[in-house]
Amino acid sequence: MNAVPQNLSFVTLGTRDMRRARAFYGSWGWAERDGGTDEFAQFDVGSVRLALYPLDLLGEEAAPGCPPPDSDWNGVTLAINVPSQQLVDEVVNAATASGARIITGPIDREWGGYSGYIADPEGQRWEIAWLPGLDV
Amino acid sequence: MNAVPQNLSFVTLGTRDMRRARAFYGSWGWAERDGGTDEFAQFDVGSVRLALYPLDLLGEEAAPGCPPPDSDWNGVTLAINVPSQQLVDEVVNAATASGARIITGPIDREWGGYSGYIADPEGQRWEIAWLPGLDV
Repeated sequence: MNAVPQNLSFVTLGTRDMRRARAFYGSWGWAERDGGTDEFAQFDVGSVRLALYPLDLLGEEAAPGCPPPDSDWNGVTLAINVPSQQLVDEVVNAATASGARIITGPIDREWGGYSGYIADPEGQRWEIAWLPGLDV
Repeated sequence: MNAVPQNLSFVTLGTRDMRRARAFYGSWGWAERDGGTDEFAQFDVGSVRLALYPLDLLGEEAAPGCPPPDSDWNGVTLAINVPSQQLVDEVVNAATASGARIITGPIDREWGGYSGYIADPEGQRWEIAWLPGLDV
């Protein structure tokens, strides 16, 4: 076994406005797992769960004494890969119609793919991507 | 189909020092996928890939015109769940022996689990967690 299991179980987004965030992902058609509370929501996203948890509470656990991030851009992107370029366009359009903020419209990327970036209400970037040769 | 597929394909960490980050995750025993370059590394973590990509290049795509985040704490946690409390201790110890910075040693959490937080060289938080009733 590795020193540290090469695995990812949860991605937790420290969230300023739980009600708004929950409504946002709900508007994407995402089904929340049972057991949520006002302070916790989780969504199955493949083998991983995406969780929403208040930023101040997450910071108490994960970054005691550190100020909360104050930038709209946290340096982390989350990507949803789709099987075609056309689906990139369709999903970006659907996401923005559901309240996502468009960051960069889908374009050909120099690394060979085609993708667009959108942001959730708190600035978390999501890339909707088609990557040649990736079976999704 | 949902407006937006409820899935996660990639988590990409905008990285200031690719060489250091690659060495760090390598020291955890993580195997990098083939096809990496000086500017791109990826690791299979379950059904998701964790990618390392230079922060400035990622920002050009995902946050044009936004300053890079300047905090040690980005508001996002990544978790590796393990099957027992003892394994939480063992993995946290192994991770810190491999260069991770300890943030909070494993403790009982009020939500019922047991976990510790560590940080990679650029401050990305990883939670090593045991969660009762979660089959991992």
